[in-house]
Amino acid sequence: MSSDPHISDIMAFADRLATASAGVTLPLFRTALTADNKAEDGDFDPVTDADREAESVMRTLIRQTYPDHGIEGEEHGGERLDADYVWVLDPIDGTRAFISGLPLWGTLIGLKYRGAPVFGLMHQPFTDETFSGAAFPAAAPLTLYRRGTASGTLRTRECADLSSATISTTSPRMFTGTNLEAYNRVEGQCRLARYGYDCYAYAMVAAGHVDLVVEAGLKPCDIVALVPVIEAAGGVVTSWTGGPVTAGGTAVAAGDPRVHEVALALLNG
Amino acid sequence: MSSDPHISDIMAFADRLATASAGVTLPLFRTALTADNKAEDGDFDPVTDADREAESVMRTLIRQTYPDHGIEGEEHGGERLDADYVWVLDPIDGTRAFISGLPLWGTLIGLKYRGAPVFGLMHQPFTDETFSGAAFPAAAPLTLYRRGTASGTLRTRECADLSSATISTTSPRMFTGTNLEAYNRVEGQCRLARYGYDCYAYAMVAAGHVDLVVEAGLKPCDIVALVPVIEAAGGVVTSWTGGPVTAGGTAVAAGDPRVHEVALALLNG
Repeated sequence: MSSDPHISDIMAFADRLATASAGVTLPLFRTALTADNKAEDGDFDPVTDADREAESVMRTLIRQTYPDHGIEGEEHGGERLDADYVWVLDPIDGTRAFISGLPLWGTLIGLKYRGAPVFGLMHQPFTDETFSGAAFPAAAPLTLYRRGTASGTLRTRECADLSSATISTTSPRMFTGTNLEAYNRVEGQCRLARYGYDCYAYAMVAAGHVDLVVEAGLKPCDIVALVPVIEAAGGVVTSWTGGPVTAGGTAVAAGDPRVHEVALALLNG
Repeated sequence: MSSDPHISDIMAFADRLATASAGVTLPLFRTALTADNKAEDGDFDPVTDADREAESVMRTLIRQTYPDHGIEGEEHGGERLDADYVWVLDPIDGTRAFISGLPLWGTLIGLKYRGAPVFGLMHQPFTDETFSGAAFPAAAPLTLYRRGTASGTLRTRECADLSSATISTTSPRMFTGTNLEAYNRVEGQCRLARYGYDCYAYAMVAAGHVDLVVEAGLKPCDIVALVPVIEAAGGVVTSWTGGPVTAGGTAVAAGDPRVHEVALALLNG
């Protein structure tokens, strides 16, 4: 394994990626950017120059530093996807929030090793927060929360059942038909529901302030980076059927495995 | 009018209130606070020691500095409500977000003169942002955005119709029955809808990033402070029937009067 990168190298490099991305996104935040529409179904799925250029600077850094690694990006597609190590990038998770001036979007940087997420980071440039987690094989899980020059670790909180749980989802409008019924079964049993936070809600699960995030219609780059952050902090992330989320689709992220189990049962019955 | 406070005195004093409130709330943010339930109907309407103590320190400062002014507070009720000047306080607007670790709650400090909102301020201690606006009779409207040591003015953006508008509301679950139908008529015509931001959404209207906020079930302290901020920045705030919002209830806040007019028409038929 001598050619494998060390965890500390990966974490330092991911910080360089996040800093480079923030150098593009933050100066464009709260400016009059043109939002193009990626949706082809009459919906509004915005993308801006900030998304495209931030991903480009990250891809350039990865190619320079780890030329044999693959890249799977929200805006510019895939390259070397059969490599052992593949970076999964979303320069602005929450473009709708970004173009609305709301500072809870984030830059998602994940790393898969042979298909499994082993490292992930969420960076919010306006609040200057970074939430990261590593779960490399044969290494102890590692988390880091950093804000400016202050740092600490991440730990999910205990939550025995839904009646004391805070649930979050970006929008209940992301669910339709039986998915909406399933989501409502879970939310209906929770103490508190909060909408609207994209990747930031998952970061709050890792940090122990939110117990459950339930979503659907995700792309891999929306979720891969968040898996190691939550799992290294003590939580669980699966699809609604209990499988891996690396292909996108549905996701249930929980800080306490007991809440995860109850949510899965309600979603499936 | 020699006994009336000057706008600049009011703005400096409101900053002192905001700073004093933040001295209570920020150290308690993202700690394991006990959330008591204010709701009597089976709902969950949380209040914490942070809410109660932050309002207390503000009330003490007001009594010391302007002993003849009235105070109307979210947590500790009213006093001297027949005074010419009445401060309207919500120490933590968005307690649900506060206890979920989400940093878009805010401290609302409003001032009414003979019943009309003449000054307002929203302070978010975690992002270190202050949005304020003054609309004193016979004085030019005045706005201020401040973050740390940087400052600027607030200006709503132009938006000719709903098809290009971004709408926000804290939660679509705040509406029931005909109110829900009315809200959905408006949201259905908007380009983009964002949920979950409490007072921060109104601040984004004043700053020109969101076009419309439509809400219901508001208390006076949820909205009074935001009226001068948005109006001094070029926007309009009324109830769904076009009247004043100072008694709480429904609210339509728009950055462009054209969008306000269209939204009112849809809400009422």
